[in-house]
Amino acid sequence: MLKVGLLGAGRIGQVHAVNIAAHAGSTLVAVSDVNAEAAQAVAVKYGAKAAASEDIIADPEIDAVLIATSTDTHSELMEKATAAGKAVLCEKPVDLSLERAKVCLAAVSKTGQPVMVGFNRRFDPNFGALRAAALAGEIGKPELLSVTSFDPAPPPVSYIKVSGGLFRDMMIHDFDMANFLMGEAPVAVRAVGSSIVDPEIGAAGDVDTAVVTLSYADGRIAVIKNSRRAVYGYDQRVELLGSEGLLNAANMLENTVSKSTVAGVSSAKPTYFFLERYMPAYAAEWDAFVRALVEGRPMPVTLEDGVAALAMAEAATRSAKTGEAVDLAQF
Amino acid sequence: MLKVGLLGAGRIGQVHAVNIAAHAGSTLVAVSDVNAEAAQAVAVKYGAKAAASEDIIADPEIDAVLIATSTDTHSELMEKATAAGKAVLCEKPVDLSLERAKVCLAAVSKTGQPVMVGFNRRFDPNFGALRAAALAGEIGKPELLSVTSFDPAPPPVSYIKVSGGLFRDMMIHDFDMANFLMGEAPVAVRAVGSSIVDPEIGAAGDVDTAVVTLSYADGRIAVIKNSRRAVYGYDQRVELLGSEGLLNAANMLENTVSKSTVAGVSSAKPTYFFLERYMPAYAAEWDAFVRALVEGRPMPVTLEDGVAALAMAEAATRSAKTGEAVDLAQF
Amino acid sequence: MLKVGLLGAGRIGQVHAVNIAAHAGSTLVAVSDVNAEAAQAVAVKYGAKAAASEDIIADPEIDAVLIATSTDTHSELMEKATAAGKAVLCEKPVDLSLERAKVCLAAVSKTGQPVMVGFNRRFDPNFGALRAAALAGEIGKPELLSVTSFDPAPPPVSYIKVSGGLFRDMMIHDFDMANFLMGEAPVAVRAVGSSIVDPEIGAAGDVDTAVVTLSYADGRIAVIKNSRRAVYGYDQRVELLGSEGLLNAANMLENTVSKSTVAGVSSAKPTYFFLERYMPAYAAEWDAFVRALVEGRPMPVTLEDGVAALAMAEAATRSAKTGEAVDLAQF
Amino acid sequence: MLKVGLLGAGRIGQVHAVNIAAHAGSTLVAVSDVNAEAAQAVAVKYGAKAAASEDIIADPEIDAVLIATSTDTHSELMEKATAAGKAVLCEKPVDLSLERAKVCLAAVSKTGQPVMVGFNRRFDPNFGALRAAALAGEIGKPELLSVTSFDPAPPPVSYIKVSGGLFRDMMIHDFDMANFLMGEAPVAVRAVGSSIVDPEIGAAGDVDTAVVTLSYADGRIAVIKNSRRAVYGYDQRVELLGSEGLLNAANMLENTVSKSTVAGVSSAKPTYFFLERYMPAYAAEWDAFVRALVEGRPMPVTLEDGVAALAMAEAATRSAKTGEAVDLAQF
Repeated sequence: MLKVGLLGAGRIGQVHAVNIAAHAGSTLVAVSDVNAEAAQAVAVKYGAKAAASEDIIADPEIDAVLIATSTDTHSELMEKATAAGKAVLCEKPVDLSLERAKVCLAAVSKTGQPVMVGFNRRFDPNFGALRAAALAGEIGKPELLSVTSFDPAPPPVSYIKVSGGLFRDMMIHDFDMANFLMGEAPVAVRAVGSSIVDPEIGAAGDVDTAVVTLSYADGRIAVIKNSRRAVYGYDQRVELLGSEGLLNAANMLENTVSKSTVAGVSSAKPTYFFLERYMPAYAAEWDAFVRALVEGRPMPVTLEDGVAALAMAEAATRSAKTGEAVDLAQF
Repeated sequence: MLKVGLLGAGRIGQVHAVNIAAHAGSTLVAVSDVNAEAAQAVAVKYGAKAAASEDIIADPEIDAVLIATSTDTHSELMEKATAAGKAVLCEKPVDLSLERAKVCLAAVSKTGQPVMVGFNRRFDPNFGALRAAALAGEIGKPELLSVTSFDPAPPPVSYIKVSGGLFRDMMIHDFDMANFLMGEAPVAVRAVGSSIVDPEIGAAGDVDTAVVTLSYADGRIAVIKNSRRAVYGYDQRVELLGSEGLLNAANMLENTVSKSTVAGVSSAKPTYFFLERYMPAYAAEWDAFVRALVEGRPMPVTLEDGVAALAMAEAATRSAKTGEAVDLAQF
Repeated sequence: MLKVGLLGAGRIGQVHAVNIAAHAGSTLVAVSDVNAEAAQAVAVKYGAKAAASEDIIADPEIDAVLIATSTDTHSELMEKATAAGKAVLCEKPVDLSLERAKVCLAAVSKTGQPVMVGFNRRFDPNFGALRAAALAGEIGKPELLSVTSFDPAPPPVSYIKVSGGLFRDMMIHDFDMANFLMGEAPVAVRAVGSSIVDPEIGAAGDVDTAVVTLSYADGRIAVIKNSRRAVYGYDQRVELLGSEGLLNAANMLENTVSKSTVAGVSSAKPTYFFLERYMPAYAAEWDAFVRALVEGRPMPVTLEDGVAALAMAEAATRSAKTGEAVDLAQF
Repeated sequence: MLKVGLLGAGRIGQVHAVNIAAHAGSTLVAVSDVNAEAAQAVAVKYGAKAAASEDIIADPEIDAVLIATSTDTHSELMEKATAAGKAVLCEKPVDLSLERAKVCLAAVSKTGQPVMVGFNRRFDPNFGALRAAALAGEIGKPELLSVTSFDPAPPPVSYIKVSGGLFRDMMIHDFDMANFLMGEAPVAVRAVGSSIVDPEIGAAGDVDTAVVTLSYADGRIAVIKNSRRAVYGYDQRVELLGSEGLLNAANMLENTVSKSTVAGVSSAKPTYFFLERYMPAYAAEWDAFVRALVEGRPMPVTLEDGVAALAMAEAATRSAKTGEAVDLAQF
């Protein structure tokens, strides 16, 4: 039974707490949060203790920590936890600074401790089925990937300002999805962005709508579309064209009911946001972490994966500013 | 080039006129109608002459007649036209009286002339693809057939009164569809009907909503649902469950556009009624008639098929009145 | 915190155990089973004790029992548990004998204890959304209901022999669905059945394919289709035609991926069987039971509902044998 | 009755011949082709005469000419026909040379004759419905457009070599679709392309897979994806995200049949290529031309539209070569 400490008891931390507690191979023993009450509430609910992050990391009884704190603490906590001999599952992104993330990667690598980055979408059953079909050669050789990823509504501008920008905060998931599905990093990144959803976002130096094109060494192409606003719900689709066919992963809908009237045929919307859509993915992610640990296999998403996605975000941020293609090799 | 006389220049006659004129192997040479102006208008449009039905039937230059007159004239016109050596395509139903239809069948059979009954739905590409897949064994042995057939709106009660009732006027298409897909007639018919759409229809002695169950000698079952009112459009679906799978033919939609908003996802309605849905089927029906004639092959829908469907309508009418199962062998 | 005893630790009992344990308002304290090891395994997993059913029922610490034992014990256990002051959630069907079920209902009613029957499909989010839309008048006045309910594969003939037959064992869910959606019982039942899937089932006196037509006092009609075999998975659909439109609840699919190749477009199958399809419904069912108890509201599915569905099964069984319509009032 | 001369009796010319002949307001009187037999065959079929292009243009009896000859003759024929007082419908593209097309536009404009360019997709009912909904404000303010346009199979390399390249030959339709839906030209064009489908295409100096991003003055973005090969059929989809929703136009399918088996659920492919998919669009295009002429209204697609799309193709060709964004204002 894996004894787990949870660092961060906010919204996403609570999702992880459920999965840690419900998993047959893990138990939640300690919880920390900058908000002591939040930590206490989660601890009580699952029979764990509230503690300081340092104490959790120092506790020899604890096997693994799940880092769900604010992004600016990720690198340091990963370094400390691995130095203390813990296995780590850290929420994405690794860091807002690519440079800092690389320092973290170097430090963590030296400890030899297993570290997984929480790119939850890799564990979505739909994207998983799409990838499995592609790997099985069902559409021949992949040639053109399209990722559509729209949030239902933009976050407050106050959040935007500290988020690192759309490419690091939001599209980083899609960069990882491209790496997951294409099996390697692209060679060049071209980005176009605008703040057409909300001019305040533009005033804060960020974009809210963006299209990024990725070019691969062998001629494959990927295109990622992001918008901070799709009023009908979380729009999360992937499409992969290959030499022998097309794979398409559509949205999950709230239910399967359709209604036909004189006004037309109407059906349910996509599930509202990531908590609705990716709840099964979070559980599968935790299960994959526990299994990899127990079976001594490599982590299914590595810290290198986290750094690679961050490098693409950095390149896209630069391309959107300069209007030019950016060679990924320089990062 | 097949020279064709058209008897009946009403709504459905005009549909046939287009197809006769457009077909590479046929030409429209004469048109009759009880309304002389209607006949004249169609004749002018396609370079044909307006004439009396008798004269068309007597004209030795004419090879085939298409009967699209009112139902009560079908039997007599078929008898006269075949006696005069014409090939005939006659609109459904053969007759409202099963007895009369049988007399017609006997008379027509003696002439040896080819006669086809206009069950247009057999030529719908969707139902055709479903049947082809079933015949190819793609779902193993068929076991349970479901036919959904709803009109967009009920006809005037004045029409209902002379229509022969829902089973002879509307469900007759579905009886033929069952025969087309199951490959033989059922042994027993059970019908339930009510006039829930419009009590006036009930007052006129008819039903507007009905479910009929057909039992086959080998244990197969078919169920047909009819309603005179589906406000969202013509609802024409077929579903066939077999030992190795299910085939489903869905509605044709007005277009492929969907709209996602906070209110949900909406898409186009089914095509409005039979002229929209079955226009390609009418053209394919005429082509099948011409090809069978030219190639000397049997008609794809025979007068026997028309009589068989009428017998089922008769049985269903009785079952709906008595509440009991009706043995089809007695008809 | 509701203290719950679980009677029956088989496949469905284990599903309930998870939900009882996971619910914030209930805790599993005791488990019984004719197989002592099965009870022990479940007890250990959730920190409960294994015990005899009698002891669980007699235990004053226990507030409610969930009956998931074999059908032949349902009535007696409900009677004993309610007599002992327990609230009860009992799996369907209430009993295979309508007479016995009525005796049980009378006995239970005298105790005044709340009893809920486990018609899980009422808690499926799709059927729930369909019903909510119908109740909100979104399709006007309902007129024609269609329930499609196919199992992926027939059970062993040994099970068929003790099951009470397709109408009591399988279609009983659909009878309850009809009552749930139509809001009242029908007046007449007409059934057609055959054993076309497996002649052994026919030899055992049962059918494996059946169509039942329900007639309502106001002219509404419902039709239920059952097959013991749909090789592509659990086929669970409902369609309701009203004066102003149609509601349709489609199947849940295994995933949202489609693949387009020269061979056509292929997509995922329906979820395999009831455990996959109705897992969320079972959790919602338990939640509804706990909430009704805690809030002192009537049970969302009553023992009367269970008896009503059983009466319809009885009527259908008779109709399938006699070939005649059966008046439900006589049951 | 509009008297029409058809220049070019190849595959697309024959499609136009049918529509000209079938239209109630037009008649085909003359046909030319570099292949005299081809012209003769079409002429015979529709009761027209075969003639030289010059003679058709010079014939005072002829009101309008439809130019469906090879692309390199378009500009000259448009100039001559308008100079001779004919109304013109000319197949796309206007010319492979933007410079030449501008000369043609200037010459044609002086004549004052109505000229329409055959961007048939504007008349597809699906894209038409999508545009109508967008113009009606049903999704608020449009922000992000996506056009997917894949051919079923690449043309011969010999064709590629004289085609002007993917951007002028294939994506020109999508540039026009962007202009049609966005209502104005973009300010900048960024293109990425590769020859991953067939290296021979790359050897011929062209690409077979490309993604183009269009930036608009107000911050809107459009992305166009092209591939010369989608083995499952002609993939023609449009998606438009707005401030209040998303519009999506999906493919037309060969039929509505789906099949569910143990292998999954399979359905029909998209219609195979442009002749299948856009046949109704070609008829609607001709009807729009005739109506605009008869009613004296402006052409629904102008020569300016043709030149605008060509300028975008030019810009994309350059961007794909240089890897840089290209300012459209310079063309």
